[in-house]
Amino acid sequence: MPRTNRQWSLARTPRGRLTTDDLALVESPIPQIGPNEILVRNTWLSIDPSIRIRLSSTTPLGYLPPIRPGEPLVGLALGTVIDTRNPDFAVGDLVSHIFGFRDYAVIGTRADTIGGYGLPTRIDTRGMPPQWYLGPLGSSGLTAYAALTEVLQLRQEDTVWVSAAAGGVGAIAAQIAKLRGATVLGSAGRADKVEFLRQELGIAAFDYHDPTLHESLAELAPDGIDAYFDNVGGDHLAAAMDNLRPRGRIAVCGAVSGYDGAPHSGNPDLFQIVSKELRIQGFRAGSYNHLEGSMRQEVGGYLTAGDMVYHETIFDDLTQAPTALLAMLAGKTIGKTLCRLTSE
Amino acid sequence: MPRTNRQWSLARTPRGRLTTDDLALVESPIPQIGPNEILVRNTWLSIDPSIRIRLSSTTPLGYLPPIRPGEPLVGLALGTVIDTRNPDFAVGDLVSHIFGFRDYAVIGTRADTIGGYGLPTRIDTRGMPPQWYLGPLGSSGLTAYAALTEVLQLRQEDTVWVSAAAGGVGAIAAQIAKLRGATVLGSAGRADKVEFLRQELGIAAFDYHDPTLHESLAELAPDGIDAYFDNVGGDHLAAAMDNLRPRGRIAVCGAVSGYDGAPHSGNPDLFQIVSKELRIQGFRAGSYNHLEGSMRQEVGGYLTAGDMVYHETIFDDLTQAPTALLAMLAGKTIGKTLCRLTSE
Repeated sequence: MPRTNRQWSLARTPRGRLTTDDLALVESPIPQIGPNEILVRNTWLSIDPSIRIRLSSTTPLGYLPPIRPGEPLVGLALGTVIDTRNPDFAVGDLVSHIFGFRDYAVIGTRADTIGGYGLPTRIDTRGMPPQWYLGPLGSSGLTAYAALTEVLQLRQEDTVWVSAAAGGVGAIAAQIAKLRGATVLGSAGRADKVEFLRQELGIAAFDYHDPTLHESLAELAPDGIDAYFDNVGGDHLAAAMDNLRPRGRIAVCGAVSGYDGAPHSGNPDLFQIVSKELRIQGFRAGSYNHLEGSMRQEVGGYLTAGDMVYHETIFDDLTQAPTALLAMLAGKTIGKTLCRLTSE
Repeated sequence: MPRTNRQWSLARTPRGRLTTDDLALVESPIPQIGPNEILVRNTWLSIDPSIRIRLSSTTPLGYLPPIRPGEPLVGLALGTVIDTRNPDFAVGDLVSHIFGFRDYAVIGTRADTIGGYGLPTRIDTRGMPPQWYLGPLGSSGLTAYAALTEVLQLRQEDTVWVSAAAGGVGAIAAQIAKLRGATVLGSAGRADKVEFLRQELGIAAFDYHDPTLHESLAELAPDGIDAYFDNVGGDHLAAAMDNLRPRGRIAVCGAVSGYDGAPHSGNPDLFQIVSKELRIQGFRAGSYNHLEGSMRQEVGGYLTAGDMVYHETIFDDLTQAPTALLAMLAGKTIGKTLCRLTSE
């Protein structure tokens, strides 16, 4: 067993866009585990937009606390238990947990993180690729599933717009909605992503740069939309409010347009909340862990039957984690962004 | 029976604040009623903020259509049936309907208005003052009741902020919330209204001008609020989002701060919808007519027991309807604003 652990830490609070110079790979001895702790060697890291918010010096009330200079990055990850003093875990167990961005994680039994993802969870892959438990059968799948079923209460007759539809969560949401019989519009910010949405996912899709959000929505949904799954915020949220039909619903999952140092564009006309009796609800997957079983049954069924496309953009080696994060934040990845750790 | 009807019409689309010159009192013969129509002599007019939106040249999608120059104003009203060719109504019946701002209304059976208030409804006052069926036992009561019970799903342990709490709807909402055991904060824009809230309604109250919304909320609800009943919009809505606790709820009933030619102040930090998992829902009472029975039972009980204060600001004579409307929009009235028509 190697003696050295490497973990990505915040070197300095980013000003504007995140750069690789804001992060530092720090080496340290692999710690000894204490009572009830397990030592996990990470195999897959989930590269998610929300980490970017925590790298700023303050985070909004209710959100995950900021990561300060000198502190390690965290994020959803999969790994193998290689040492244990916790009777609930055996060496060789595959676990999901939130101590990503490092080779080795020492995980205790304190629920010292958020959203129910604090404690490690043993994964039975049931023959599926393990990293799917970070994607469609894990947090991404739960986010998409909770948004559609609980927050939006999607009906078959709905027209739903999914923003960032070529992203890790959006691509799953768009397909669940389609497979449940709804009419789906997906938006993305690059021609290759729009092509992916049309060709691979088989949904109506548009590039939000071209011509404009309002023109694209007017063309693809001339009678308006019933529901909007928001991952972008800003001008997307404003356009959704303008194009929702009376009693329309919005599930607000994120606002990635404002995460990486860019000012938000577009203030929604909020009076439409009254005039159209809109319902707007923010949510995080961690509040919907009780849906994990039904999500895995439904999404697992789609995957097994070959009805759902699951696309990954994989970066190899822990050294590439910042590159993966920057690429994902810049909109250069398609589908789920992952970092695969070199096995030694 | 007099031969002349008077009704307020829009003389010109208001620019900026509404003035009495924008309205004109038009005389015309009382029309003959046709098959299935009734002729109603109005006795009470409800003076409500929402009419102001309709006097602009466009109204938002989903809202009541604009009233154009030359067209009569409408609004909730009570009146007595004085002639009938509709077998469901007898001479002498007290009815509520939406053809206010006039002495006499000819009402057919077409549901040609919105929100379920299109058709006249016969009122059995059960010994209550009739105008209460425009106030706490009518639309105002239903608005307040639907907001608290259905939209906000108010719990006894909640701290709820009611804006425009000295208004026709707000005063009822604040008291229903208090009588159901919640902690209530009320805001208003004048010292006499704040005094009314404290002395008459017995709730914690503040003037939103003094010192600031944020300072007042921080002082009166240092741990944040759970629910907000929005009648004001703008900076009030922004302050509510800032002060809501995680999983807080907002019922958006109106945005009166922006109705009368004033630009909205204050853009909310919408990322808090995600970070705090907020739920924001717009509504109009007309969508909750099915709650009328339970509302009347509960609110009628409070009124009969003397537990609810119901304050009215009454203007006399149809000629005073614009004065009443301008006073209400300028925040100069307390409680429900009504216009009582002179009986002849």
